[in-house]
Amino acid sequence: MTRKATFYHAGCSVCVDAEQTVADAIDSARYDVEIVHLGEVPGRVAEAEAAGVKSVPALVLGGQPYHINFGASLDALK
Amino acid sequence: MTRKATFYHAGCSVCVDAEQTVADAIDSARYDVEIVHLGEVPGRVAEAEAAGVKSVPALVLGGQPYHINFGASLDALK
Repeated sequence: MTRKATFYHAGCSVCVDAEQTVADAIDSARYDVEIVHLGEVPGRVAEAEAAGVKSVPALVLGGQPYHINFGASLDALK
Repeated sequence: MTRKATFYHAGCSVCVDAEQTVADAIDSARYDVEIVHLGEVPGRVAEAEAAGVKSVPALVLGGQPYHINFGASLDALK
């Protein structure tokens, strides 16, 4: 059974790079990775915030937020 | 052929958590993940620094550093 992993980003260069390396490196046999572009689906900013995401790019694994480098603050996307 | 991924940490709680989730989620069929505890092998701090690592935990993938949350500054480990 696969676990859920959500990669939140906002299309910034730091985000795109992290998506193509870190998010891509996740084992798809064990994780169902969803890529969420918060600039395109601003309605999900609240969901990211509820998971503890403070900035993008960020990966939420097992309900915990892992901020990967720094692209943009979540506040800047509201 | 597997690519190299290096996860640098320093034994801090933020580090251990990231190791057990993010580093563990990496696809071992595509990546050869090496876990390096810089507190135990301080001789490798320079190597991490050369890869652009500023703080731990950090993952170096494809030669690029990805800082995951913040546990400790690399300067604190010198």
